[in-house]
Amino acid sequence: MGWTKKHIISIKDFSREEIDFVLRKSSEMEKKLNSGRASSLMRGRILATLFFEPSTRTRMSFETAMKRLGGKTVGFPFSEISSEAKGETIADTVRVVEGYADVIVIRHPVEGSARLASEYVDIPLINGGDGANQHPTQTLLDLYTIKKKFGKIDGLDIAIVGDLKYGRTVHSLTNALANYDVKLRFISPQELKMPRHMVKDLEGNKIPVKETRKLNLDDADVIYATRIQKERFPDPQEYERVKGAYVIDLKTIEGLKKSAILMHPLPRVGEISPKVDGTKFAHYFEQSKNGIPVRMALLCLVCGVKF
Amino acid sequence: MGWTKKHIISIKDFSREEIDFVLRKSSEMEKKLNSGRASSLMRGRILATLFFEPSTRTRMSFETAMKRLGGKTVGFPFSEISSEAKGETIADTVRVVEGYADVIVIRHPVEGSARLASEYVDIPLINGGDGANQHPTQTLLDLYTIKKKFGKIDGLDIAIVGDLKYGRTVHSLTNALANYDVKLRFISPQELKMPRHMVKDLEGNKIPVKETRKLNLDDADVIYATRIQKERFPDPQEYERVKGAYVIDLKTIEGLKKSAILMHPLPRVGEISPKVDGTKFAHYFEQSKNGIPVRMALLCLVCGVKF
Amino acid sequence: MGWTKKHIISIKDFSREEIDFVLRKSSEMEKKLNSGRASSLMRGRILATLFFEPSTRTRMSFETAMKRLGGKTVGFPFSEISSEAKGETIADTVRVVEGYADVIVIRHPVEGSARLASEYVDIPLINGGDGANQHPTQTLLDLYTIKKKFGKIDGLDIAIVGDLKYGRTVHSLTNALANYDVKLRFISPQELKMPRHMVKDLEGNKIPVKETRKLNLDDADVIYATRIQKERFPDPQEYERVKGAYVIDLKTIEGLKKSAILMHPLPRVGEISPKVDGTKFAHYFEQSKNGIPVRMALLCLVCGVKF
Repeated sequence: MGWTKKHIISIKDFSREEIDFVLRKSSEMEKKLNSGRASSLMRGRILATLFFEPSTRTRMSFETAMKRLGGKTVGFPFSEISSEAKGETIADTVRVVEGYADVIVIRHPVEGSARLASEYVDIPLINGGDGANQHPTQTLLDLYTIKKKFGKIDGLDIAIVGDLKYGRTVHSLTNALANYDVKLRFISPQELKMPRHMVKDLEGNKIPVKETRKLNLDDADVIYATRIQKERFPDPQEYERVKGAYVIDLKTIEGLKKSAILMHPLPRVGEISPKVDGTKFAHYFEQSKNGIPVRMALLCLVCGVKF
Repeated sequence: MGWTKKHIISIKDFSREEIDFVLRKSSEMEKKLNSGRASSLMRGRILATLFFEPSTRTRMSFETAMKRLGGKTVGFPFSEISSEAKGETIADTVRVVEGYADVIVIRHPVEGSARLASEYVDIPLINGGDGANQHPTQTLLDLYTIKKKFGKIDGLDIAIVGDLKYGRTVHSLTNALANYDVKLRFISPQELKMPRHMVKDLEGNKIPVKETRKLNLDDADVIYATRIQKERFPDPQEYERVKGAYVIDLKTIEGLKKSAILMHPLPRVGEISPKVDGTKFAHYFEQSKNGIPVRMALLCLVCGVKF
Repeated sequence: MGWTKKHIISIKDFSREEIDFVLRKSSEMEKKLNSGRASSLMRGRILATLFFEPSTRTRMSFETAMKRLGGKTVGFPFSEISSEAKGETIADTVRVVEGYADVIVIRHPVEGSARLASEYVDIPLINGGDGANQHPTQTLLDLYTIKKKFGKIDGLDIAIVGDLKYGRTVHSLTNALANYDVKLRFISPQELKMPRHMVKDLEGNKIPVKETRKLNLDDADVIYATRIQKERFPDPQEYERVKGAYVIDLKTIEGLKKSAILMHPLPRVGEISPKVDGTKFAHYFEQSKNGIPVRMALLCLVCGVKF
């Protein structure tokens, strides 16, 4: 994989070696960031953030990454898209923006839109989330968080909890973990189980998979919790009953391995009790913060900036 | 008061010495700004602006201050908050943002929210307005404007006009003025008088207070006008009648002291006639501009940047 | 014309010499931009973008121009204007912003608003579009695109196609072309013909003008296409019929001069078939990109920055 001018569309485009390379470079970047030596790597360059749906967190994280590198950003926030521009094709929009910027990050509600957009531009384009499909930089920061804590990914027992059927984050992460020698545990209500084809693919890759409805976290090294969304349930009472069964609280963590970590892509809406925040298990704010060096590293890689 | 990492939540947290210190540093900063020597004090640092309600002016003023210092900003404008993020607690939001930025300014419609938010972060947090409660940087720029004009605050006769019951700006300013040897005159319709407890506090501090309904500005050094909002009146006709009685126009200023100044937190909606703008009394645009050096000074102080 | 502190309100304020000067400086700026020598010309300066209606493209282009010069921007995006601020006069808004920034670009739905605003400030103000009236920087980048391609404007045969009655862009461009020795061809449905007074002015200037309904592009050097908007037609069927007659597609371009170029202010909504994008005639993305050096040159000129 030549990195310069590479589009970052899907974690499935990455081999294990490529993922490991990004994680290693992210670690180097974090050292540079903390020592203040990253602040002019992207001087004079511009990142365009094209967000066709509101996204506070991903946009801020990318903007912060670019600014920590001494670069600048120009925005295209959702609410400011004029009605005329709303009628424009993505192909036209990104070709116009190519005239302004050196690298693009795009979020769009339609699956496949990032791939489509990337076919029209010569500058690198990063997928910041396309519908229910992919969000590769989220996955890379998730993996980075795990690697930073345990020094490795191989050998870990990883539990993924919550909405495994619709969760974009969860699908990308699972795709990536299939490259490693891990044990996976999928914990969800019956209605929100991991899609069959994904489980089969894992089994084809010789990844041991356990699926349960009960929130059993014994022996897990990583617990990755996600939101269970009300709109997935026809019956609101059913939602309330189900949701309650997957809340991680002070009682839940009593049974955890001493070295286990709790992760969450955030925002959370009750899946992890705030009482857990002060414990050594809580890693979700650290995880969010890890997005900065990971995105800094990626931005430099695709722009051909050595570091 | 140690300034580095200090949260700026309420003007009531400031002693007179601390206020005077900020005003002195703001004056030094203004000199640096005008001579071009301020432009790299915050190089490499990021201010996060978290605005949970639209605020054109305060946000722009803080962003300008940060940029005049060579720093960068990342935004969280109201209209871009995703629906998911809207369900998030402030405690979670600020802890995520702490992973991105070096200092936070927050505006939120709920009283006490800035104080609450500050309890969750180690980086300094500045209150940019919490509901009807506090807006400490507005008060500091108000005081700075007075001090810059008169060289002092002690000894002045200060008239505050308009909605004294609900006005956040007016309450903060009055709290701060209680530290000085001033005469205060509160001019408002009966319905919008200064709260009793505030008047009692002033009297307890031996501050001479006069309350009137008539717009009598004789001998006043400072006239601080504020908006009277329609929604405070059950009867729209009553509103129109009352509002008209507090308009400062060319006739009003005929009777002013030669050295008097007119202030207003802006935006105005008729309280001061545009015909007054060209007179030497008009100080409201200057007042707004003074927000830049005051906020620059505060940002440097709380970030531990010497100047 | 002294350039420093000049307001840029209408292309009609520019003489031919002044337009040629801007085009020459834009060309110099483009060389500086491409060689990386432009990136600190505006260091320490701030552009305020005051957009009273959403405009993705013009705002991003100005922000990019300022950032490519090493300057910073503070925003005032439409959706973030607080309800209080919405009641404020333009005169007040720009005087407040004058306290923050070194140069202003304003877009406002009301004709004449940019001129009005400029009368209240001492810092330079650029019109980014005022209603159906003027958009002078669009016209300058249009002319720059033509000059860059042909090395001249005199002697060219220029066809303008689409909505010639209401199009702001088209009127400004025609005003500017009246300074040159060109042939003009206006191609539009009967309902959307160029206003009579504009045609008369051109004839008074001895500019040969042809008006047709048929999309006849023989011998044209420049074809400038514009949107035909549905809301101009009482009868939707009539709109569909008319619109179809002005679509430029692979068949249309067969008859073009070898050296002809297709321009469009973008966004397009069908006026030019995407199949044409890959041909040598397509110049609309290049045209959009040309906005950057043109706006960079203008920003430097009005701020008194030598280059």
